[in-house]
Amino acid sequence: MLGVCYYPEHWDENRWETDARRMVELGISYVRIGEFAWSRLEPARGQFTFDWLDRAMDVLHGAGLRIVLGTPTATPPKWLVDECPDILPYDEQGRVRGFGSRRHYTFSSETWWRESARIVEMLARRYGTHPGLAGWQTDNEYGCHDSSLSWGPEDLRAFRDWLRRRYQSTDQLNEAWGAVFWSMEVTGFDQVALPTGTVTEPNPAQRLDFWRFHSDQIAAYDRMQCDILRAHSPGRWITHNFMGFVSDFDHFKVAENLDLASWDSYPIGFVEKFPFSEAERNRWAETSHPDIAPWHHDLYRGVGRGRFWVMEQQPGPVNWAAWNPVPKPGMVRLWSWEALAHGAEVVSYFRWRQAPFAQEQFHAGLNLPHSDELSPGGAEAAQVARERAALPTLPATTRGQVAFVFDYPSYWATMIQPQGRDFRYEELVFRWYEAFRRLGLNVDVVAPGAPLLGYALVVVPTMLQVSEPAQKALAEAEGLVLIGPRAGSRDRHFAIPQGLPPGPLAALTGTRVTQVASLRPGLSQGVTGAVSGAVARWRDHAEAVGAEVLARFDDGGPALTRKGRVHSLMGWPEEGLLGQVAAHMAGAAGLRTLALPPQIRLRRRGDWWFFFNYGPGEWSLPEGFDLLLGSATVPPQGLTIARSWT
Amino acid sequence: MLGVCYYPEHWDENRWETDARRMVELGISYVRIGEFAWSRLEPARGQFTFDWLDRAMDVLHGAGLRIVLGTPTATPPKWLVDECPDILPYDEQGRVRGFGSRRHYTFSSETWWRESARIVEMLARRYGTHPGLAGWQTDNEYGCHDSSLSWGPEDLRAFRDWLRRRYQSTDQLNEAWGAVFWSMEVTGFDQVALPTGTVTEPNPAQRLDFWRFHSDQIAAYDRMQCDILRAHSPGRWITHNFMGFVSDFDHFKVAENLDLASWDSYPIGFVEKFPFSEAERNRWAETSHPDIAPWHHDLYRGVGRGRFWVMEQQPGPVNWAAWNPVPKPGMVRLWSWEALAHGAEVVSYFRWRQAPFAQEQFHAGLNLPHSDELSPGGAEAAQVARERAALPTLPATTRGQVAFVFDYPSYWATMIQPQGRDFRYEELVFRWYEAFRRLGLNVDVVAPGAPLLGYALVVVPTMLQVSEPAQKALAEAEGLVLIGPRAGSRDRHFAIPQGLPPGPLAALTGTRVTQVASLRPGLSQGVTGAVSGAVARWRDHAEAVGAEVLARFDDGGPALTRKGRVHSLMGWPEEGLLGQVAAHMAGAAGLRTLALPPQIRLRRRGDWWFFFNYGPGEWSLPEGFDLLLGSATVPPQGLTIARSWT
Amino acid sequence: MLGVCYYPEHWDENRWETDARRMVELGISYVRIGEFAWSRLEPARGQFTFDWLDRAMDVLHGAGLRIVLGTPTATPPKWLVDECPDILPYDEQGRVRGFGSRRHYTFSSETWWRESARIVEMLARRYGTHPGLAGWQTDNEYGCHDSSLSWGPEDLRAFRDWLRRRYQSTDQLNEAWGAVFWSMEVTGFDQVALPTGTVTEPNPAQRLDFWRFHSDQIAAYDRMQCDILRAHSPGRWITHNFMGFVSDFDHFKVAENLDLASWDSYPIGFVEKFPFSEAERNRWAETSHPDIAPWHHDLYRGVGRGRFWVMEQQPGPVNWAAWNPVPKPGMVRLWSWEALAHGAEVVSYFRWRQAPFAQEQFHAGLNLPHSDELSPGGAEAAQVARERAALPTLPATTRGQVAFVFDYPSYWATMIQPQGRDFRYEELVFRWYEAFRRLGLNVDVVAPGAPLLGYALVVVPTMLQVSEPAQKALAEAEGLVLIGPRAGSRDRHFAIPQGLPPGPLAALTGTRVTQVASLRPGLSQGVTGAVSGAVARWRDHAEAVGAEVLARFDDGGPALTRKGRVHSLMGWPEEGLLGQVAAHMAGAAGLRTLALPPQIRLRRRGDWWFFFNYGPGEWSLPEGFDLLLGSATVPPQGLTIARSWT
Repeated sequence: MLGVCYYPEHWDENRWETDARRMVELGISYVRIGEFAWSRLEPARGQFTFDWLDRAMDVLHGAGLRIVLGTPTATPPKWLVDECPDILPYDEQGRVRGFGSRRHYTFSSETWWRESARIVEMLARRYGTHPGLAGWQTDNEYGCHDSSLSWGPEDLRAFRDWLRRRYQSTDQLNEAWGAVFWSMEVTGFDQVALPTGTVTEPNPAQRLDFWRFHSDQIAAYDRMQCDILRAHSPGRWITHNFMGFVSDFDHFKVAENLDLASWDSYPIGFVEKFPFSEAERNRWAETSHPDIAPWHHDLYRGVGRGRFWVMEQQPGPVNWAAWNPVPKPGMVRLWSWEALAHGAEVVSYFRWRQAPFAQEQFHAGLNLPHSDELSPGGAEAAQVARERAALPTLPATTRGQVAFVFDYPSYWATMIQPQGRDFRYEELVFRWYEAFRRLGLNVDVVAPGAPLLGYALVVVPTMLQVSEPAQKALAEAEGLVLIGPRAGSRDRHFAIPQGLPPGPLAALTGTRVTQVASLRPGLSQGVTGAVSGAVARWRDHAEAVGAEVLARFDDGGPALTRKGRVHSLMGWPEEGLLGQVAAHMAGAAGLRTLALPPQIRLRRRGDWWFFFNYGPGEWSLPEGFDLLLGSATVPPQGLTIARSWT
Repeated sequence: MLGVCYYPEHWDENRWETDARRMVELGISYVRIGEFAWSRLEPARGQFTFDWLDRAMDVLHGAGLRIVLGTPTATPPKWLVDECPDILPYDEQGRVRGFGSRRHYTFSSETWWRESARIVEMLARRYGTHPGLAGWQTDNEYGCHDSSLSWGPEDLRAFRDWLRRRYQSTDQLNEAWGAVFWSMEVTGFDQVALPTGTVTEPNPAQRLDFWRFHSDQIAAYDRMQCDILRAHSPGRWITHNFMGFVSDFDHFKVAENLDLASWDSYPIGFVEKFPFSEAERNRWAETSHPDIAPWHHDLYRGVGRGRFWVMEQQPGPVNWAAWNPVPKPGMVRLWSWEALAHGAEVVSYFRWRQAPFAQEQFHAGLNLPHSDELSPGGAEAAQVARERAALPTLPATTRGQVAFVFDYPSYWATMIQPQGRDFRYEELVFRWYEAFRRLGLNVDVVAPGAPLLGYALVVVPTMLQVSEPAQKALAEAEGLVLIGPRAGSRDRHFAIPQGLPPGPLAALTGTRVTQVASLRPGLSQGVTGAVSGAVARWRDHAEAVGAEVLARFDDGGPALTRKGRVHSLMGWPEEGLLGQVAAHMAGAAGLRTLALPPQIRLRRRGDWWFFFNYGPGEWSLPEGFDLLLGSATVPPQGLTIARSWT
Repeated sequence: MLGVCYYPEHWDENRWETDARRMVELGISYVRIGEFAWSRLEPARGQFTFDWLDRAMDVLHGAGLRIVLGTPTATPPKWLVDECPDILPYDEQGRVRGFGSRRHYTFSSETWWRESARIVEMLARRYGTHPGLAGWQTDNEYGCHDSSLSWGPEDLRAFRDWLRRRYQSTDQLNEAWGAVFWSMEVTGFDQVALPTGTVTEPNPAQRLDFWRFHSDQIAAYDRMQCDILRAHSPGRWITHNFMGFVSDFDHFKVAENLDLASWDSYPIGFVEKFPFSEAERNRWAETSHPDIAPWHHDLYRGVGRGRFWVMEQQPGPVNWAAWNPVPKPGMVRLWSWEALAHGAEVVSYFRWRQAPFAQEQFHAGLNLPHSDELSPGGAEAAQVARERAALPTLPATTRGQVAFVFDYPSYWATMIQPQGRDFRYEELVFRWYEAFRRLGLNVDVVAPGAPLLGYALVVVPTMLQVSEPAQKALAEAEGLVLIGPRAGSRDRHFAIPQGLPPGPLAALTGTRVTQVASLRPGLSQGVTGAVSGAVARWRDHAEAVGAEVLARFDDGGPALTRKGRVHSLMGWPEEGLLGQVAAHMAGAAGLRTLALPPQIRLRRRGDWWFFFNYGPGEWSLPEGFDLLLGSATVPPQGLTIARSWT
């Protein structure tokens, strides 16, 4: 299904009818509205002006559209900020982050929780049972613009409260933080300071707690909104639109409150955000890299426990990256089908019409600014709708062959102490995902501790702290397991575990890590054996303690080990080694693979095979397929859907 | 004529006579003094110590020098800052910019206006009719060191007042700013905040207004000084010494108050400031790029409505760039003659003697520190004086063949929303200017809306917002017109115009722009047709609506169009394409051109042709000239003046 | 002798006995303790808990170890910071640098001096005569983490007091600072501001005074601690552990209070800190550059007037550089022997056991975390102890052939006004040192003004301000003298000297510098004559006034001059020229040299020759040696000790 984001408050009311009609004509079923409209809903305290939204919802509903209503808490209005400046967030340098854009609040402010509850309840009561209302979106893109963490007085107060609950006594806190080091001990929780502004780096255990505290707060804040919405809006689902490549809080935890996940897909914008090389950025600038959107689809399908939307789909150039090219013709269609192939229930474009004013005026819409004329992206969306209508119902999404365990706290921990400047958790995971996708495999992303039964292969690029459930899930996995560097290298207090890394995984892996090396760009260490190549960036100097050594470093140290089902890779593999490791593991797991060139990806949904060509150059399907859409030769920026004979 | 900047307060009084005598002997006519001397004129409030300046002026006048007196407002003394801290400016992060160097005031402070008026009036009354006084310089280098804009409480107060006058009501302000977007609406002018410190980018319309507000303030502040000076100093002209590559305020507006413009020419220092490639920086490090000083000469001749000085001419190495080499032998002479060729009335060197102390002690003077011995640059200045004296009077400067429209607000707008990180207005203009100068053409720089009659060719590298006068001037131009990318892409409220870009120019250009692409370094799009090559950085995706298409992009879209006299180029041309476009336009305009190598430039003043060789390598004049100075083969760092037979 | 740093407070008390016993078994004689333990010694004001330290000292002493006790002033505890926030330092942007790591105090705070004296006296009284106590370490790594300078209200107050004492009157201050320039004059000391937060650069003379003021403060603070320690701890020596590549204060001045110097040697960590090229960083990443540790050994032998320790020796990977590789096998042994070869009395490893918690948990120790198992570095330390025991007593360190004059104020002055962005004093000195070490020469580092008798060659890479004693020492030197660029270019008030540079050296050098050029990367100027090659970064344009010109620039200017014994080099030599200059000078001085490849170094101690191979590749000793340790072919990461026949 298709959807679109719409801002009735941006347009003359007399355009609404036409807009709604044209949406339906294009093939759109869902329309999301309202998420930034607080100043139009309550221009001054207690002075509510809901009448325009009443009419807008009636018009949209009347045209046959199903409405997703956003709570407007991402944009508290100026009168509220002036009245309650304690809601504002602070940056890491202690400067207030003020009014004038969006996300200008801290999750630590009790005032903010009260004001949020007030406006959410007003909306829930008024629209909770509107016949056009399909569901709710809470807030907008938690964490976007580095807004997860805040370093203000309200944050300090709330952090101390959180620590009191966690540790009960300062003795336990001092012990947990290793505070004896450098005389960092405190004798009262009111002595705890924010982990910033120190002469050299602050205590990493304190920083990790600060990150956990904020992650907990976001989940609790979202739950507060959900509880209000559920109380007043029976039968409607609730989602939140997560932003790509934001990992400052645990999305799995937030999603526990939600009925389904959704995410905002800007495949080209993210090319500038992800740490690609310049050569890769140039290659993928106008199409996106073929794993960026898919990774997020697979992640949010996991976050949403099988259910997810693309709430905002890039429909043309955007405004917010360092450079913003026009996507190559065909890419908007390709991305849309790709989302469906990965199981998205709805692909909702951002936005109906390009805004001619304010911050995002360079952001394309399905329609040109000021007009009722489709943009090139709008025309491609219409094509998707026609193609979708002409095909049978898509088969259900089935379990992938490979499970990837994604661990938000590992991101936090490696940000806090990367030890090598380029050790980036998201990059490690992305490259490993790419390697397995290059083999044509379907990947599911799962939370640490989630059951791993039924997967032929489980991949853990790393997991610094291994909880008891996570250890148990890996121990009980039925397929092969591949574990990457730094796994189990920290305990729950951010300390090196007793018995050395991999700590709780040691019995599974049969290894012990005695030293670690981060390697500057230009350095690498060769590997030979069952797989060969080199590691860069990171090496675990390990001993095999019960594990078989499948490949060794040039100095003889273990590089790839196996104990039973469990394999360990002792470093950050360069591309060549990574490809060999992926192929080795897939082969050992008995998986049927298809070696795909860099620009081609395959995704299977039920018995439908979707082939995507990110270009340049044509690509021909192997023998053995019945075509459902497209041809056996996939053109650049094209796709083919087919059923396999086998 | 030659001049020099002199600081009598830096030297023992018993040196003044000798200094003045040696200036005259060298061939200097004008001496600028006083512009940083406040602490010596008023060491404590109301305690005036003008006697030393009285004597200094008498000595200089007595030696036969004409005096330019600077108002000392660029350096308020410490007692004033301590007494009135509200005069201090704030940076964009909200930190006060304090005492200890110069330009430590904000134009928004009413206190500062009062104090400025007080000291200016004291000076004007005392020296306004001094027989040695030729004219005044207001302040010093407005905008230097990023001092145009300030983000303090006084600025917020004054900005709100400016907005009240501009918009009358917050409804109109909200409408103009598109403030409904992200709930940025205000219900009172006192709710308006500074456009900084936001979580993500502030509203661009607000930022543009903030820039306009500061530009207006600078013009008004300068007018205030001028009004006082004119009241007490009849018959003396007034100028301001603008700084190269400072575009934060509209110099045309400030110059409306002035009798003539002047600027401070540091050709080598600017090599590090302008975004040249490293290869270009290395090539031009010791000579400057051959268009840097000429561009400014042509700009300030336009700003000064035909009249300009070089108030400060680099005489050797400076102190303030990242690297400060010694200019190659001959360059000080070359730059001096070049200024005269471009119409400068006076070339005034900075400074008479190198200061042995304080911030600029690495800055060369015409004399070595502590001594009466000419520096190498001083010797070259003396040579210029001798050569000048031996030649007949220079002919009058005549109208150029090509007009360049330079639009300060386009600089602000593209700084606010570059959309591609390397879209820099000043670089665009400079590269286009270079291309036409490489054809041996004389260029005049004009303000938007100025009449364009009499030019064979009018070039508008871009102009984001096209005012009614600007549109009218282009419509009435007699020659060909070449308009670059992004023209007409914003209305006066920084919004996309109705009917899409180029907005008010659409009837002239016969084009419509539906999408725009910024292209990261490494990406480009090929062009073929009447001109060929590639665009980089930026492309307008346009449709020809009445225009003829002279060249197309590889995907078929219009690249160069023509409707009647008006040509549009739909992107940022790479060097090859730019050269072809310039040649094509000059040819179509019937201009006689001379294809010059990268290091050679020609400037015509009346029937005198000045050839400048920035080196390395000799260059021989074409046939057909009578030599006035130099030889038919121009040596590196040399120049030749000649009359054309034709 | 070997030592180790130990933190009894980090471990269960029941491990202490074993730890102490194993230290002795490994061959360790000294143990340093206590320097970060304030929160364990005084958990709340006046509540002292010394009993654990009593027991720890008794255990260590009982095992036969000699104890170095550190004063814990690098880590004031939180209760003290909360009670006395005026002890906190401020960064250059005016932000307080808070609690949570270490070195969070300013030397300007009178409160801090009082509190420091209090805790130091408590310790000195309690342990000053403990039979196991060998000596004291004051504080820890003054200046580390940019902690020498502070920009807070206490600093401003103290700076004004310092200025009052230095200048007596504001007239003298204004004169010294050239404050007439830009109206920077003050009429009271209370008008003086901190040299930061200005619109453009602050007055350089003021900045230099601010640096001197801080340097003076550090020396006085250290003296305060020393005075207390001496009063209560008769017969014990005092040292401070200086940090490598920290030059913000004058180490020679601090060491005047000390009995011996010591420094903290992290050869690999410093590879990322020093401005090497990327190629060099890659080459030396896992061994260190072969002059980094030796330079510091020679420096601190000079600082300690012949006596120095390595107080902290890197024993494996560290945690604090951008990348932290594992040292190649053999390097810990090599570094240890190298320190002894350069005259270290003790090499003390940091630390006994890797901390499993807090900021430095990635920092290796001699033992693995949590365990009594030696790390690879621990095993190499044990090897050193065995080798040391098997050899005869090392001969005494004798005077080197070459004296390098190292001048901390030249570092400050070139930081304040580099004039070319890459003019770095420490890099200049290091490269010159490398060149002479490549000739196999022993270098002594001496303070400006120290006697230079007995040296065949004296090298002054530069010395901006030449004091009377420094000038006198150079005049009286017996050997040849080589003086680099910028020498004598500033007087004591940071002004260009009367008569131009080299100021007080002019009579010795027979030169006069009239202009200077800084050259951007890519520019250089050729040199030919007695030496040939090129200079980059910097050139002095000089005249020979009595000097003989040994080599000239391509434009004819003097490049290398000689007047009697004194040679001047007029620029920053590129590697080729530098090597020629070093060889020329050594030859002229009659020194026997040995041209060593980049990875080999020689150090002579008495008649023992130590050859060190930083790898890769073997290297064979010349003929003529009797081996004491190792073989005639030195393997990579290996060393050979030999006696010369000659």
